[in-house]
Amino acid sequence: MIDLYTAATPNGWKATITLEELDLPYTLHPVDLTAGEQDTPKFRALNPNGRIPVIVDHETNMTLFESGAILLYLAEKTGLLMPRELSDRFRVIQWLMFQMGGIGPMQGQAVTFERYFPEDVPAARKRYKNETRRLYEVLNTRLAESEYLAGDYSIADIANWAWVKTHRWARISVDGLEHLQRWIDAIAARPAAQRGLEIPPPAGNSTKQKALGASITTR
Amino acid sequence: MIDLYTAATPNGWKATITLEELDLPYTLHPVDLTAGEQDTPKFRALNPNGRIPVIVDHETNMTLFESGAILLYLAEKTGLLMPRELSDRFRVIQWLMFQMGGIGPMQGQAVTFERYFPEDVPAARKRYKNETRRLYEVLNTRLAESEYLAGDYSIADIANWAWVKTHRWARISVDGLEHLQRWIDAIAARPAAQRGLEIPPPAGNSTKQKALGASITTR
Repeated sequence: MIDLYTAATPNGWKATITLEELDLPYTLHPVDLTAGEQDTPKFRALNPNGRIPVIVDHETNMTLFESGAILLYLAEKTGLLMPRELSDRFRVIQWLMFQMGGIGPMQGQAVTFERYFPEDVPAARKRYKNETRRLYEVLNTRLAESEYLAGDYSIADIANWAWVKTHRWARISVDGLEHLQRWIDAIAARPAAQRGLEIPPPAGNSTKQKALGASITTR
Repeated sequence: MIDLYTAATPNGWKATITLEELDLPYTLHPVDLTAGEQDTPKFRALNPNGRIPVIVDHETNMTLFESGAILLYLAEKTGLLMPRELSDRFRVIQWLMFQMGGIGPMQGQAVTFERYFPEDVPAARKRYKNETRRLYEVLNTRLAESEYLAGDYSIADIANWAWVKTHRWARISVDGLEHLQRWIDAIAARPAAQRGLEIPPPAGNSTKQKALGASITTR
């Protein structure tokens, strides 16, 4: 059995969608980010960086943080969502890294300056929205020649999709990116992707300190 | 033989240091970023994202971009700089992802707002310098309990070190982080790390259009 500590964010969805696609049983432990639960000693023992998601795989006695590492681990554990042949497999890893080092951080900064930063800095908003749009265009070019990012549907698609699908939250347009839109819609239609987005809020928002202890077992 | 297209940046050093540590022969093709060579059709054919480094491994007929993917590929190709046992290997991948999604992008933004952004935005400078310092503290905590980030010296150390060693360029202090400093110094003393930092400038800065064609074969 796998314990998953997570929250309803793009990096959290990466993990839940992958687990749902793989049909692996797991126990969901919602982490209340607004209550700062990721900064508690209990959570820091799981991830000293204080970030979701984290998995504990009791079968292999492995605690693992960093969403990109978790996706690779689950794909390797099951032999699914990633091809076995060397060059095909590294094509998946390449596009997973593109999300980890590009789409994720840049779109994350775009959201920060659009919505959360204490002062309005138009030049910073523009910087991150333009860079994220540029990265979307790279994805669109790739998706013009390939149905999915790295051949068959894989963890590379899940990782990028969990971010790109929230483009409106960052107020970044996908207008004119028809291949990207086709891919967004195709993955949105997958039942496992839909289930993966349904990370419940932490049990008892009114008793926040209990949330990390609460859990919901799926399947 | 491996062709490496790169430049003297932290992500470029990740690749050269790894190749030097592995003692793999490679042909170095310096890419002139100041001349915008990464945006030429020739380079875009290697990486549609227009970013260094890129490798072409003629032995496996594989073109690969994203520095994190390249490091994993080289470690797997040689069976070195990454342990074989599952949980040890994923510990390396976890700390590699920490660099890809954390240290790299956050320190990169700190440098941008410290040095290159067209306007001075003190709140943005502070945001990225504080976040990078926080990530350094996470590394320091890890290095208090382990000589290297994931057991033995690995690609996870190379990836993080290539960034952290340039902390002064981002004007971020490592004061008080004694374990991080010990680790910075230990890797700096490695001959392969020293050789990896010596990426030459593109041949003929005065004839920039020729630079991508120029190459220097090492060993």
